[in-house]
Amino acid sequence: MECPFCEGSESQTPGEILAYRNPGSSPDGRGWQVRVVPNKFPALENVEDVSKLGESSGDLTPAVGVHEVIIESPRHIRSLSELSDQEATEVFRAYRDRLGMLRNDRRLVYGLIFKNVGAAAGASVEHVHSQLMAIPFLPSTVQQKWQAAQQFYDQNEKCIFCERVRQEQTRRVRLVEVSRHCVAICPYASRVPYEMCVYPRSHQSHFELTSDRVLADLACLMRRLLARLERVSEGIGYNYLIHTAPFDTGPVPHYHWHVEILPRLSMAAGFEWGTGCFINTVPPEEAAERLAQLEI
Amino acid sequence: MECPFCEGSESQTPGEILAYRNPGSSPDGRGWQVRVVPNKFPALENVEDVSKLGESSGDLTPAVGVHEVIIESPRHIRSLSELSDQEATEVFRAYRDRLGMLRNDRRLVYGLIFKNVGAAAGASVEHVHSQLMAIPFLPSTVQQKWQAAQQFYDQNEKCIFCERVRQEQTRRVRLVEVSRHCVAICPYASRVPYEMCVYPRSHQSHFELTSDRVLADLACLMRRLLARLERVSEGIGYNYLIHTAPFDTGPVPHYHWHVEILPRLSMAAGFEWGTGCFINTVPPEEAAERLAQLEI
Repeated sequence: MECPFCEGSESQTPGEILAYRNPGSSPDGRGWQVRVVPNKFPALENVEDVSKLGESSGDLTPAVGVHEVIIESPRHIRSLSELSDQEATEVFRAYRDRLGMLRNDRRLVYGLIFKNVGAAAGASVEHVHSQLMAIPFLPSTVQQKWQAAQQFYDQNEKCIFCERVRQEQTRRVRLVEVSRHCVAICPYASRVPYEMCVYPRSHQSHFELTSDRVLADLACLMRRLLARLERVSEGIGYNYLIHTAPFDTGPVPHYHWHVEILPRLSMAAGFEWGTGCFINTVPPEEAAERLAQLEI
Repeated sequence: MECPFCEGSESQTPGEILAYRNPGSSPDGRGWQVRVVPNKFPALENVEDVSKLGESSGDLTPAVGVHEVIIESPRHIRSLSELSDQEATEVFRAYRDRLGMLRNDRRLVYGLIFKNVGAAAGASVEHVHSQLMAIPFLPSTVQQKWQAAQQFYDQNEKCIFCERVRQEQTRRVRLVEVSRHCVAICPYASRVPYEMCVYPRSHQSHFELTSDRVLADLACLMRRLLARLERVSEGIGYNYLIHTAPFDTGPVPHYHWHVEILPRLSMAAGFEWGTGCFINTVPPEEAAERLAQLEI
């Protein structure tokens, strides 16, 4: 079967919302580097007026919002690590641009960029791509993180993420890589083997407000981190997620955008479902040491 | 490779903690129906004094507790649905007996029985078995459920689980099966396709205090529910978990033990990790109707 994400198959996807194109090329035609299209099988519906639906359905919140696909290359490749630094930077620019646009949509409260790679991570298409979902409420997990960060700030007058970045750079036992503008660690109490977390070294609450310089640095770092992961286990499945602050907030001192990378070497099983506790057989200190030493 | 859980391979597991045996048979020899042994690769360590370890490791909680395997048949079969009603009842009796014993261990606060079936659900051995983990703290997910149930009781003077059982039996849109003592439904806001939940129809907070009659009824119902699930998709992977009240509480009016069955037809992906929200393509009403109509 033909891949709907390859150059030349543009008619097989819904019409593009955003594309970085060669001068003179036509929308939904050939000649692009990154293409953003609505998901053909959306988990959410894009409707005009959220509040109306909300009222009509009693205690239900309708599955309202935006579900887009970011096609990261016109070529049929599987991993961001196979892109050039410049191509990877374009991908992260598309993430930022789409979040930046959706941030202005007053129906929406939260936007998540995520990537599923491999069947174990929930992927159904192998052509390199990510997804964006934007929703009209703040999910409980994000709310908890947000509140905990707020509480830490109130007590310490410090951003908990900045504090963690500082500590990890001092202790150096969970560091994977430090780039010009970002730092990648295996987090304390990692849930899964080789879990990683990437933070910008300077405080910034919203990913969509990131500067070009930090964005390019992040994209190159992400390429290298994924290449490292692929050295640990060829064809490894993983998810990555970009956590940004809620759309309906301006820059805040207590929250800090970050990227989580969750490899799928092990499966969450009954114990994890029942307790929310994760059994992880590779301590983050060991994982970080191995990842940092791999030649890429 | 020989299966370590089959009759005749008893020496390949750690010595048995509990077994239902034929009269005259010897411990760790042939002649049993159900055998409970320590997990050979425990995720938790069984140490004498939890508090000492806790102090020595600062802000860490050591992985202390009990991790056991319940081997559900001497024969090499894969599913509880292949057991007879009487054999299945013995399995649930072993669950109850072990939880009842561990409840008296003052180091432990919470015990979870769970079963992983299929690689997608985290299983590594196919011979029919379950696991028991008992831990020295109340996990946050259980704590949340417990508190929400307490709050509902304080406001309504009713057990929220009893109330749900009553409502589901009246509305009949998410019912899978009602047995003499239990009811099986596809829960409202199911996280995954064909998720099921089983409740005893009479109030009971602790699974380990369940009567023989209810236990036998539950075991037979579980066999049928799993047979139904296997009709939906042959060889389906799933987890089931038994949620009971904390060990350090006596019978309470606000909590109600229950069994969760989580089929693994879809994989939690980036969106679920990032938000804690689950995308489920089969509404519970549809799932319940299909499950209820299947001939088993």
